[in-house]
Amino acid sequence: MSDTTETQGSWLSEEDLATARSRLPIVYVDAVPVRVDDIGTVSHVGLLLRATPDGSINREIVSGRVLYGERVRDALLRHLEKDLGPIALPRIPPTPQPFTVVEYMPNPDITGFFDPRQHAVSLAYVVPVEGDCMPSHDALDLVWLRPDEVMSPTVAAEMSPGHAKVVRHALAHTGRPF
Amino acid sequence: MSDTTETQGSWLSEEDLATARSRLPIVYVDAVPVRVDDIGTVSHVGLLLRATPDGSINREIVSGRVLYGERVRDALLRHLEKDLGPIALPRIPPTPQPFTVVEYMPNPDITGFFDPRQHAVSLAYVVPVEGDCMPSHDALDLVWLRPDEVMSPTVAAEMSPGHAKVVRHALAHTGRPF
Amino acid sequence: MSDTTETQGSWLSEEDLATARSRLPIVYVDAVPVRVDDIGTVSHVGLLLRATPDGSINREIVSGRVLYGERVRDALLRHLEKDLGPIALPRIPPTPQPFTVVEYMPNPDITGFFDPRQHAVSLAYVVPVEGDCMPSHDALDLVWLRPDEVMSPTVAAEMSPGHAKVVRHALAHTGRPF
Amino acid sequence: MSDTTETQGSWLSEEDLATARSRLPIVYVDAVPVRVDDIGTVSHVGLLLRATPDGSINREIVSGRVLYGERVRDALLRHLEKDLGPIALPRIPPTPQPFTVVEYMPNPDITGFFDPRQHAVSLAYVVPVEGDCMPSHDALDLVWLRPDEVMSPTVAAEMSPGHAKVVRHALAHTGRPF
Repeated sequence: MSDTTETQGSWLSEEDLATARSRLPIVYVDAVPVRVDDIGTVSHVGLLLRATPDGSINREIVSGRVLYGERVRDALLRHLEKDLGPIALPRIPPTPQPFTVVEYMPNPDITGFFDPRQHAVSLAYVVPVEGDCMPSHDALDLVWLRPDEVMSPTVAAEMSPGHAKVVRHALAHTGRPF
Repeated sequence: MSDTTETQGSWLSEEDLATARSRLPIVYVDAVPVRVDDIGTVSHVGLLLRATPDGSINREIVSGRVLYGERVRDALLRHLEKDLGPIALPRIPPTPQPFTVVEYMPNPDITGFFDPRQHAVSLAYVVPVEGDCMPSHDALDLVWLRPDEVMSPTVAAEMSPGHAKVVRHALAHTGRPF
Repeated sequence: MSDTTETQGSWLSEEDLATARSRLPIVYVDAVPVRVDDIGTVSHVGLLLRATPDGSINREIVSGRVLYGERVRDALLRHLEKDLGPIALPRIPPTPQPFTVVEYMPNPDITGFFDPRQHAVSLAYVVPVEGDCMPSHDALDLVWLRPDEVMSPTVAAEMSPGHAKVVRHALAHTGRPF
Repeated sequence: MSDTTETQGSWLSEEDLATARSRLPIVYVDAVPVRVDDIGTVSHVGLLLRATPDGSINREIVSGRVLYGERVRDALLRHLEKDLGPIALPRIPPTPQPFTVVEYMPNPDITGFFDPRQHAVSLAYVVPVEGDCMPSHDALDLVWLRPDEVMSPTVAAEMSPGHAKVVRHALAHTGRPF
């Protein structure tokens, strides 16, 4: 998950956010960007490439927190535009029902989803993207992979175990056998 | 639900279809066409106007059966294009998970959803429509109504009780209070 | 929504919680308790009766926040047992996918769901309850109503507008016509 | 999928059913039986053992068609009791919304789910089972496996590719990492 440092937007100082993160579950959204054909079949999954502090490359889905007073759908658009650029034209789903709720925790044994920084309760959505993507923010690139490529061990190994699981579930949710 | 008389497309004669309808549940799709803004909020619901045999006007959602060998998403596109025209640009959902399954039966007491002709098991979806709609087939018109208009007793009275319930559920599913 | 004052359980002082509530969305669960028959058909909905500060009686569903480090399913069980007693035997759903996400906000105009105290993002579930219920905590009573009774204007008028909407959506989700 | 030969129950002769199966999609239910703890966490998945015509052993989930006039929830109970015995006490979900819709087709290339006999549109549910299971019908045994065992290549190899995919998706739907 990318860090969220928009101090103005969050109405919360970095210090206060750190305190809250150690005491409250934080509301997140996870978005799996996809390309679809005219009957909604997923042809490609979009993964962000980021450099990690230790110099390796990591593949990620779009993820970030929901701000105070912000609707889930506003947060989805904000994070998608932040990571995919302003003309990505994401088709935010009309329903707030997520395909799953991912519970990332500092203790990796509780749910199997790990986040050392916080307890995040993340609403996960599959989001078709129709426009041109220009990875902004701190991503190096955005790569579109076919479902079979995404499911390959090589690609999965370049994702966090949590994101790899979310992507596999997202593909199952779209009816793709794996 | 509009009748489905496409004899070639159905690989089933009218007589055989009538026999099957009296003995087997028929697979259907129900689609509630909506206009959405850039964060997926529903601004309008599309209802078809049809003349009934007794001369009154009925409001309907898009509905029709799934053919042998046809995927659910193909059936959704086919019925939406049949009723809304070829450039309606419906955004078929990437997932086959419907927001509900509607069980229409000749006996209205079993599920509360009634179809005198058949037992239809209908997968119901909310489908954003982005293009220009030109009601074709046997519809008189397509009217876009705001959610509060759709929920008004006047409009509901012009729909079959089953379709009115599906539309109310569809709006709840999109997070619209009612 | 019932207030959550379990200071120990929350690992957060009352003051800190108040501060967080003014700055971060809080993760909640909403549970609509139901009685079901052996094929899962809902026969009754359980509503709590509470006295409001102004002396009137309010009907409510089960609702409360998710604590730091607590899984959503643990929070569901904790709030159901707190409100329905220790032998209510709620059948927590096997899936974390909620039927909807309710966004309660201090500004009632944004989502149509209002909470003057906070911005709560609530995962909503229908929970079959099989055991004996003894409303504990601060509820006066628990009343089981048939779906048609729950949908009556009289009963709806005794609920907060938000909870009435959640209950209507829950019934639609279970296939009950209304 | 087990064959359905209940001629009386189906109100359709074997010959007519064969004809219908070659011309119409057939409505099915798939049920993944699970054991859950008191917070709904899946501890075990139940798989049926059947002898195949060629003498090998196959692992299967519960699956069968919906009859004319039968509700989806009635079909779920009927097939679960047929395969798991009369005191299995399945907890049929209160909602008709399936976690996915599986489209089995005679042509395996269309959806990736294969059934040489027919085009089946199957509504898939996870069903907690609380009672004692005595595999009846034509099953040899019912085996309860932990999620990690179910996901092992050995077990997956003993299932049809379609059922293995449905089980993996069912586990993802219950929040189990894999």
